[in-house]
Amino acid sequence: RTSRAWGRPFLPSQRLKGSLRTLGKAKNGVFFSPMLFQIDHFGFAEDRTFKQRYLIADQHWKKDTGSILFYTGNEGDIAWFANNTGFMWNVAEEFDAILVFAEHRYYGDSLPFGNKSYTDAKHLNYLSSQQALADFAVLIQHLKNTIPGTENTPVIAIGGSYGGMLAAWFRMKYPHIVIGALAASAPIWQFDSLVPCGSFYKIVTEDFKKSGAGCSETIQNSWAKGLQWLSHTFRLCSPLKTKTDVINFREWLRGTWIYVAMVDYPYEAAFLQPLPAWPVKVTKSKVTGIRALSSLVSHATHDLIKLSAPVSFIFSKACTEMVMPMCSDGINDMFEPQKWDFHAYSEECFKAWGVRPRPSWIPTFYGGKNISAHSNIIFSNGGLDPWSGGGVTKNITDTLVAIMIPEGAHHLDLRSNSPFDPTSVLQARLLEVHYMKLWLQKHERVKTCPK
Amino acid sequence: RTSRAWGRPFLPSQRLKGSLRTLGKAKNGVFFSPMLFQIDHFGFAEDRTFKQRYLIADQHWKKDTGSILFYTGNEGDIAWFANNTGFMWNVAEEFDAILVFAEHRYYGDSLPFGNKSYTDAKHLNYLSSQQALADFAVLIQHLKNTIPGTENTPVIAIGGSYGGMLAAWFRMKYPHIVIGALAASAPIWQFDSLVPCGSFYKIVTEDFKKSGAGCSETIQNSWAKGLQWLSHTFRLCSPLKTKTDVINFREWLRGTWIYVAMVDYPYEAAFLQPLPAWPVKVTKSKVTGIRALSSLVSHATHDLIKLSAPVSFIFSKACTEMVMPMCSDGINDMFEPQKWDFHAYSEECFKAWGVRPRPSWIPTFYGGKNISAHSNIIFSNGGLDPWSGGGVTKNITDTLVAIMIPEGAHHLDLRSNSPFDPTSVLQARLLEVHYMKLWLQKHERVKTCPK
Repeated sequence: RTSRAWGRPFLPSQRLKGSLRTLGKAKNGVFFSPMLFQIDHFGFAEDRTFKQRYLIADQHWKKDTGSILFYTGNEGDIAWFANNTGFMWNVAEEFDAILVFAEHRYYGDSLPFGNKSYTDAKHLNYLSSQQALADFAVLIQHLKNTIPGTENTPVIAIGGSYGGMLAAWFRMKYPHIVIGALAASAPIWQFDSLVPCGSFYKIVTEDFKKSGAGCSETIQNSWAKGLQWLSHTFRLCSPLKTKTDVINFREWLRGTWIYVAMVDYPYEAAFLQPLPAWPVKVTKSKVTGIRALSSLVSHATHDLIKLSAPVSFIFSKACTEMVMPMCSDGINDMFEPQKWDFHAYSEECFKAWGVRPRPSWIPTFYGGKNISAHSNIIFSNGGLDPWSGGGVTKNITDTLVAIMIPEGAHHLDLRSNSPFDPTSVLQARLLEVHYMKLWLQKHERVKTCPK
Repeated sequence: RTSRAWGRPFLPSQRLKGSLRTLGKAKNGVFFSPMLFQIDHFGFAEDRTFKQRYLIADQHWKKDTGSILFYTGNEGDIAWFANNTGFMWNVAEEFDAILVFAEHRYYGDSLPFGNKSYTDAKHLNYLSSQQALADFAVLIQHLKNTIPGTENTPVIAIGGSYGGMLAAWFRMKYPHIVIGALAASAPIWQFDSLVPCGSFYKIVTEDFKKSGAGCSETIQNSWAKGLQWLSHTFRLCSPLKTKTDVINFREWLRGTWIYVAMVDYPYEAAFLQPLPAWPVKVTKSKVTGIRALSSLVSHATHDLIKLSAPVSFIFSKACTEMVMPMCSDGINDMFEPQKWDFHAYSEECFKAWGVRPRPSWIPTFYGGKNISAHSNIIFSNGGLDPWSGGGVTKNITDTLVAIMIPEGAHHLDLRSNSPFDPTSVLQARLLEVHYMKLWLQKHERVKTCPK
């Protein structure tokens, strides 16, 4: 097949050849939709459009038996997610699948207003999960209309973290477009008061506790230390000078512990930053229990936190719909006590962006804990992942199932197979494939045996 | 119970006592929500709110066994719909129900921008089915939070015509909020190319054919007549003078035939205009077959068409999401041949409102014909109703059921019981109650026997 077989003429260079290797050079493999997307799906006064990027790989596609595995992109460059979602590449042949990775609006190259997209609340107005899901729906319909033989091809949504929420919500809101969803490490209940606000930090603490005696205590004790101790212990190039420096540094530390717990993978990984295998244990193995950080995390800047998955939302989306209450008490966790203060949170958002967050909108729109009317969603969770506290960890119905991976960090199951993988994640992946095949079989039955 | 029992102090006069009689004076019984609604649920730059009106009647409410019957308001004053939805009042006691009638934004007194709401596309931007459904969701959550004892009360959505579409879509998109929906005469498939564009006029024609020999032919022949004949036949006070007069008059005629077919009820009714029983037959019984109109329709103005149910959308919502393709060929129907010309339609919208309609958005968002993943929706259709052509007239699954009422016009089943009702509508109402009770029983079972 040449690219002309897609019904529209594309330059070959615009199309990914579809291997992990070529994806490594995704910048060359950018595949722009010839169709433009509405900036606003829900209003008609704003009629402008933008280009949404997506990546596509079809070398395993078989028309009669195939499926489309559709990655619901989250906050970041889609090529990066494609490279960190080896699971899809690993199962592509088994599913005779076309892989599609859709970039989330406002990230990567999919900027509705170019470099003005983030300038103010007016330009940011169309950054929402609802708009993103509508993009995905329109994209899939476009693909089905333009790729010959895919009209009736079943689509499965796959995503991790915020992208996992999107995958689950996509199935809930657009069951006519995706027959099921794999939602990996998706904290769809980390909203309002659906789960205790302390669960997140509690799990981070447990991770460090598990790594050996004294580890969480060392961290806990560090919060009371002054600027001299901190500057010395962390061998900072420019020592902390003011109270604000100390506060900022502590905040950075907190973010780093969270991050290390989130990406506590069994092998070296450069998920967001290069890290050794089992970074929580490595942290513990160092003398102070925290000094190790300076070598662990190569670019020790506050930006790290900005980068790390859903935490990034604090800076834009978290001030609108993504309000995820968090708190620590210093008793059940190793962090400084910090109450959940929505009022202060809202004030900060208003100062920064001129908008007020709406904490109950997500549960109102997506159903909160009352989602049993839906079907065909796998919620997978890593036992080490602090986000599992807001995840669905127990089966809701026969078709809304939970998979726990006790030795798994943040959506480890979506990563490529590795000889270092713990058995639990291998089992999880097998189960995920099993359920996805069940959906496809059921879909096939309904298709061939209409009522 | 006094109004204070609702958790917030309301003036008694603000609250409906809940009988059809008092509802007749609905202007006094207006019940404003103390909570304000977001003008934009899907964006955060527009943070203003507006007051949405709803009516409430609770004299049959029983806490332990009760339910909430929620009318999803359509295009018009909600008191008017409450007075024309006798079905809900008739079954309220049987369901121990609170009745709620929610006004649709941009109609009645629920104007987001007051008397500026309709001035331009910018102010009309938040008039959409998605925003309306979000209003309903937020309203129900508000009621459950403020009316003691309703936290776990199951809610059933009920609506007719465009309101019936909203009821069905509400269940599809918010199954966590309503356990089921009765969608009466809801043409959810009158979009894109889901049904032939000619079905609507064909059914109007059949109605007139059924009323006796020669009727549809007389109408068909009238299109070729000139201004003199028309002026004489209809005894017009000011005779038609120009070609444009004739075109406008013909358009008015077309709208009137549609309207008479839509409201072909078995008894005198003042649905939109005062009409005798079985108005199609009455029309036929007059000598010319059409002269009768001048007595049939008291205010023979073009406004009549503007008033009649979904047709009203042509003037605002139809230029955004509510694109309902219609055509006539003069062979299978009694109308002048008129092709469906989306391009011209779009141009007209752009001229009038500065917006372009998006004809495939409704099917993309709500699923088109592929809705079998949903459950608990009754689609009822009148055999005489031209909108039945775009309705769901066959069962889709065991819980997505269709009810046909051969002798029924536009959502006759939602009207009050009458001695003139044909058997088919009585049976339909019984079936509707039967299904609604099944949903409630199933809901009760799930509630008392958790997994």
